[in-house]
Amino acid sequence: MTKEEISNRFKKLQKHICQELESLDRKMKFSSDIWQRPEGGGGDTRTIQNTEIIEKGGVNFSQVWGTTPQKILDALDLKKSTFFATGVSIVLHAKNPHMPIIHMNVRYFEMSNGTWWFGGGIDLTPIYVIPQQAKRFHQLLKETSDKFSTSFYPKFKDWADDYFFIKHRNETRGIGGIFFDRLNEESSDISKQDIFSYCISLGKLFPEIYIELSEANSSLPYGQEELNWQLIRRSRYVEYNLVYDKGTKFGLDTKGRTESILMSLPPMAKWEYNYEPKTKLELNTLLFLKKGINWLEIDN
Amino acid sequence: MTKEEISNRFKKLQKHICQELESLDRKMKFSSDIWQRPEGGGGDTRTIQNTEIIEKGGVNFSQVWGTTPQKILDALDLKKSTFFATGVSIVLHAKNPHMPIIHMNVRYFEMSNGTWWFGGGIDLTPIYVIPQQAKRFHQLLKETSDKFSTSFYPKFKDWADDYFFIKHRNETRGIGGIFFDRLNEESSDISKQDIFSYCISLGKLFPEIYIELSEANSSLPYGQEELNWQLIRRSRYVEYNLVYDKGTKFGLDTKGRTESILMSLPPMAKWEYNYEPKTKLELNTLLFLKKGINWLEIDN
Repeated sequence: MTKEEISNRFKKLQKHICQELESLDRKMKFSSDIWQRPEGGGGDTRTIQNTEIIEKGGVNFSQVWGTTPQKILDALDLKKSTFFATGVSIVLHAKNPHMPIIHMNVRYFEMSNGTWWFGGGIDLTPIYVIPQQAKRFHQLLKETSDKFSTSFYPKFKDWADDYFFIKHRNETRGIGGIFFDRLNEESSDISKQDIFSYCISLGKLFPEIYIELSEANSSLPYGQEELNWQLIRRSRYVEYNLVYDKGTKFGLDTKGRTESILMSLPPMAKWEYNYEPKTKLELNTLLFLKKGINWLEIDN
Repeated sequence: MTKEEISNRFKKLQKHICQELESLDRKMKFSSDIWQRPEGGGGDTRTIQNTEIIEKGGVNFSQVWGTTPQKILDALDLKKSTFFATGVSIVLHAKNPHMPIIHMNVRYFEMSNGTWWFGGGIDLTPIYVIPQQAKRFHQLLKETSDKFSTSFYPKFKDWADDYFFIKHRNETRGIGGIFFDRLNEESSDISKQDIFSYCISLGKLFPEIYIELSEANSSLPYGQEELNWQLIRRSRYVEYNLVYDKGTKFGLDTKGRTESILMSLPPMAKWEYNYEPKTKLELNTLLFLKKGINWLEIDN
């Protein structure tokens, strides 16, 4: 399996996901920005704005190469190398505050010395946590993961709890999901082909999850109170992405295309000094933003 | 001059600045949050919201101590030490898009091995750059700096250009101002007392600058177009503060009080994918967001 084959399959995955999402509402039509990176490679950033369901979103494909960033060389104790990275990365911000923010990413990284790995993740950031939906979300992730290795879900669920964590707020970004990095034959018990298939399966699971969530939540009524809370939660999303997110950092460090990297940011966000939850629903959501919750066994 | 004397004088400076700003409009009344830091020290965060002129702002005083962060020890090749840090830090976001965002900070840092330095800066982030006002702003900074050393303004102006730079946007945060760090008797040609007086002079210059800007701009008419551009420019301010600002990083790294550190963030910000300037005034502003502009000699 060559890096070109992986990259082509990711490109096809992007197309599939956009098509599935376009079935969601009549206004849903992605526009595509094909871009090139002067240092090598490029991508296709597909974005949507102000559809019936989505306020802002993007499904990004990229395939970039160049000199491996010093940080990665240091971490692996390597002197010099070139890298190739390809992946699909998605963030969707819905209009309705009853719809969660969703993120999905699958990626492949290879270096000229032969080192390679896959990475990926799906995580959900509800504006209001609904335990039943959180449980269902984790169940779907477990089901898909179990097909490849039963060790994946528990390990990657904990990884997501640790990774999607806003240290300075002492809260998780949302209800987590799964996250993994540097997955290869040494770090897992499955073949390269199977790890790749796992990434593709997660990619295909993504629109299924989102469409299901949309059917349940996109028509629920809301008012100013809910919109205000959505803006507050979105500001935490901004904080996470700009302060902690490694994909964002890697993108900015490797001179990626800024607009494609920051397409993950919400359409609007609000910072109110010392905001305190105003309703029981807001407070309950904050109480759920913790590491280590076993969503599979939570009472509805 | 002990660290306690410096700290007390900074506290007095905070009070002075708040009083001067409170003369700006009838609704202007700061509320104060006195906080303690479990690891040592604390502060007084004074904030305002929705006055006639200001939408969100804060004048923060802090005085913290503890174990010196590893990053600083590494940079100075030190093994172990405790630190003491005190300062006043201000960001004001005005309602009117014709008013710039302003930031001022003066600070003192001392370690148990006797190392000490002052740091500080004032910089202006206009939503619309008005060359005449930018010139006047830089003139005032130069005048105050020249009283202490004529080497300061040119050096600290360039430093601000480099420091307040949003690398991933290839634009400066605003029209710069002055910035300095690690200023002590070795790195300057003046005494500790004089460096301290310089910091205090900058602190006192700050409300003068802001009141003058407010008199010129706070009553100018504006509509949706200007408010939208303000939201876009504020998002760049968020990006700068969360990705690059060293004060923010130091605060978050040393487990500072999150709400006091992030009080600098705007009340609201907007991210629009691939935003292109919509008017000549917006485009002109972008053309001014460059390093190395000699504002003192710019044609009005």
